[in-house]
Amino acid sequence: MINLGMASLRLYAGLVGCRSGSCARSLRTLSGMTVSQIDEEVAKLLELKVQLGGDEGRHQFTLKTAKGTRDYNPKQMAIREKVFNTIISCFKRHGAENIDTPVFELKETLTGKYGEDSKLIYDLKDQGGELLSLRYDLTVPFARYLAMNKVTNIKRYHIAKVYRRDNPAMTRGRYREFYQCDFDIAGQYDPMIPDAECLKIVHEILSELELGDFRIKVNDRRILDGMFAVCGVPDDKFRTICSTVDKLDKMSWEDVRSEMVKEKGLSEEAADQIGQYVSLQGGMDLAERLLQDAKMSQSKQACAGLTDMKQLFSYLQLFQVTDKVVFDLSLARGLDYYTGVIYEAILTQTGPVPVAAAQNGAGEKAEEGVSVGSVAGGGRYDGLVGMFDPKGRKVPCVGVSIGIERVFSIMEQKAEASAEKVRTTETQVMVASAQKNLLEERLRLTAELWNAGIKAEVMYKKNPKLLSQLQHCEDSGIPLVAILGEQELKDGVVKLRTVHSREEIDVSRAKLVEEIKRRTSDV
Amino acid sequence: MINLGMASLRLYAGLVGCRSGSCARSLRTLSGMTVSQIDEEVAKLLELKVQLGGDEGRHQFTLKTAKGTRDYNPKQMAIREKVFNTIISCFKRHGAENIDTPVFELKETLTGKYGEDSKLIYDLKDQGGELLSLRYDLTVPFARYLAMNKVTNIKRYHIAKVYRRDNPAMTRGRYREFYQCDFDIAGQYDPMIPDAECLKIVHEILSELELGDFRIKVNDRRILDGMFAVCGVPDDKFRTICSTVDKLDKMSWEDVRSEMVKEKGLSEEAADQIGQYVSLQGGMDLAERLLQDAKMSQSKQACAGLTDMKQLFSYLQLFQVTDKVVFDLSLARGLDYYTGVIYEAILTQTGPVPVAAAQNGAGEKAEEGVSVGSVAGGGRYDGLVGMFDPKGRKVPCVGVSIGIERVFSIMEQKAEASAEKVRTTETQVMVASAQKNLLEERLRLTAELWNAGIKAEVMYKKNPKLLSQLQHCEDSGIPLVAILGEQELKDGVVKLRTVHSREEIDVSRAKLVEEIKRRTSDV
Repeated sequence: MINLGMASLRLYAGLVGCRSGSCARSLRTLSGMTVSQIDEEVAKLLELKVQLGGDEGRHQFTLKTAKGTRDYNPKQMAIREKVFNTIISCFKRHGAENIDTPVFELKETLTGKYGEDSKLIYDLKDQGGELLSLRYDLTVPFARYLAMNKVTNIKRYHIAKVYRRDNPAMTRGRYREFYQCDFDIAGQYDPMIPDAECLKIVHEILSELELGDFRIKVNDRRILDGMFAVCGVPDDKFRTICSTVDKLDKMSWEDVRSEMVKEKGLSEEAADQIGQYVSLQGGMDLAERLLQDAKMSQSKQACAGLTDMKQLFSYLQLFQVTDKVVFDLSLARGLDYYTGVIYEAILTQTGPVPVAAAQNGAGEKAEEGVSVGSVAGGGRYDGLVGMFDPKGRKVPCVGVSIGIERVFSIMEQKAEASAEKVRTTETQVMVASAQKNLLEERLRLTAELWNAGIKAEVMYKKNPKLLSQLQHCEDSGIPLVAILGEQELKDGVVKLRTVHSREEIDVSRAKLVEEIKRRTSDV
Repeated sequence: MINLGMASLRLYAGLVGCRSGSCARSLRTLSGMTVSQIDEEVAKLLELKVQLGGDEGRHQFTLKTAKGTRDYNPKQMAIREKVFNTIISCFKRHGAENIDTPVFELKETLTGKYGEDSKLIYDLKDQGGELLSLRYDLTVPFARYLAMNKVTNIKRYHIAKVYRRDNPAMTRGRYREFYQCDFDIAGQYDPMIPDAECLKIVHEILSELELGDFRIKVNDRRILDGMFAVCGVPDDKFRTICSTVDKLDKMSWEDVRSEMVKEKGLSEEAADQIGQYVSLQGGMDLAERLLQDAKMSQSKQACAGLTDMKQLFSYLQLFQVTDKVVFDLSLARGLDYYTGVIYEAILTQTGPVPVAAAQNGAGEKAEEGVSVGSVAGGGRYDGLVGMFDPKGRKVPCVGVSIGIERVFSIMEQKAEASAEKVRTTETQVMVASAQKNLLEERLRLTAELWNAGIKAEVMYKKNPKLLSQLQHCEDSGIPLVAILGEQELKDGVVKLRTVHSREEIDVSRAKLVEEIKRRTSDV
């Protein structure tokens, strides 16, 4: 039985009134309602829904993971572990500390940080208490962390999953739940030194992962804003035009131009001027040229960005990474919080296209040399921490995020294609027996090995066949078998068998641990 | 302007009617409504709420993490990494593979698996599309994974965060977001062998973590159910009485008895009989005695459980872990899915109580020897995979979950109390200079070291003071400093300084990498 308060009567009178045309009156009625009264009504309606069977009737039970997410099987985990090790080693080589934050934040923490992408945030259901959202990236939680703990200096990495209600394209490594591997430097420093280190890190990681050739595009929000200003974009349209420019990696210039003019109301003239700039690419030379450009040089902002760009390239030369870095005026990046340098790394070779993607890819351009997607991105965000600090104190930050799902996809395809077997365990020895009734002896020996730090397995059968024990070793790449029999027990030895050569020797029980360690020291 | 359809008119007519008494009629009206029409109305009301300012006005912006969650700072991460390494090493030593699953599952996947605890599940907001919930443990996602991928044999571990809308007690390591480290063995095997390995693993991990003395309680769902049956508990009350028995670690027997009788409607006689059994503790001997018990022996189920318990203890003797394992008839565990052996590990020493807890602990019993909380638990769940398999095919499973937040708390308190500094980076060398204008030389050398795999840091200042560079090394435990000056550059050397001894020697640039590696080989 549902209990409706007087509030609902008033509310619905208002709603109905609104529909029948007398909106002014009804809005006044509405303003008499409080938010918590609305909440109450919503709760009652949802209760009603449950009584009607809720969403149950809509679909049958389906055995699947949520849309846009996936499990990792042991083989994929082995690959993931390898990729993470490469990335973490690099972060540690650069002296980074490690932090972690919760998977959800107060909803308000994420509000107003992501511009047009905010609609992709996953909210949690209001079950009473705080309103929560799943993190959308690791940057905003990092800024919240800095402000909350009054940290003004830190170099940290953070590897964790983030969540976006985007259109997934899983065969190409685009998921709704995906890992980001972030490295950020917070603190007041001399210009462009930390920024250059971030690019060096991207260069190191992408080189070490051996994913083929790559390119790191660099630009600066101040250059973009300066460009928009001198091209005649109204101030209040900077961010939205920036979002449109950001689509240049997926859309042709014609389509981008059309969106600017038709959807965003920009003048054709301004759009065309933007078009001339965003086609430019180069290095330090381009920054120098633009500093002399009649129009660009009129913008103080652009000049500051261009001067820093020159400085950045001088450090990149010292780091010997200029071979992969391009100053590209079309790079925009959608997120609202960037204030200075921005960058994005793309793989320039198209990898082996997975079958499913090739089949579904009707609308996809598969031209030669087309970028197969961004694998890293980042930039400077000097204002974000100040948005959280009660006194607005700023902590300048610059960072990079490695998006490794695409990397996983490539590595998985490589592993699929290669004949080499991926081991999913590190087991050194299997404790086996050829005879019956030796379960207890097998268990005792296995425990001895475990206690000595040896990675050992034993079959959970009273009387397993020797063949099936050996087969398990073949299947999972276990290199050694310790075989027990009545005779071996009497003699105080174990028959140690090398799986690949099938050689067997007797080893005294006392020396077994040492012998296994010696033979598997490379495992 | 809000657009309300005719549906709402009918709906609200129904609701109002309901309130005014003529419910039969209104429910008929309601049954004319579809769930999606209700959804539509809810969406409209929520839109209204946004127009009224949403939840904005309710509270001011707060700089905090969500209730019951916490950040990990670098020191905590260093401790966490150490704990994880111990646990992962153990899992790998036992030949486990690794898997991962998404943080959220379809809501229906979690439905009906957790008994009375289901109310603690976090749901995601219905933003269109599937209804999702955050995982509550790693066991149900594992069972879903097995059924979905038709895996009938696997030994795997999974370390990930799970989510429970419980009352947090963070100073005691109880959070709403917390890690579980799960190890499970799935497959049809001879009885109690994998079960014994799970207990061996708990024993190894808790011993290696050096958390003080511990006890592992063991029981069996079949023994509990048999006991309930012979004590006269009606069949349909087994689960709810089981939940009450599960509270014996937090409540006195008197309170548990009262809940059984007054809240759950059990007869006093039955409750008292249960009381006699749940006070029993022992080992293999107790299992043998109960097999002879006049009442217990009448239950086939209990006998099966007791026979297996004897078998389990015989394997535990081989594994030499019986010193810590107790057969305890009061152990119940709340989760619905257990079918056989269940266990739970507790630390028996009270650690140093954090100040905040001691101050707030008015209602807490702090008696000597009282358990400081469960740190591991698990059991056998032979029916869970079958609940997901379209044809109901069963895959027997047994597993253990290490709840390491409590462990972290203890380790953090230990680290706090100890004089030893926790290093949060692994940096081997700081590239420094005593003179001005050597930024470029410092950056060049740093890049050389990075490229040679050396963990190196450099200050992001054009002209940092030598003292502040050395201070940074002291603060963060960097053992070496490579100092560049005009003279060193001319001579092709670097002054290599050992931070703790302040010794300095000149090392030729060509040999620097080797020398750093030699001196930090133990880092």
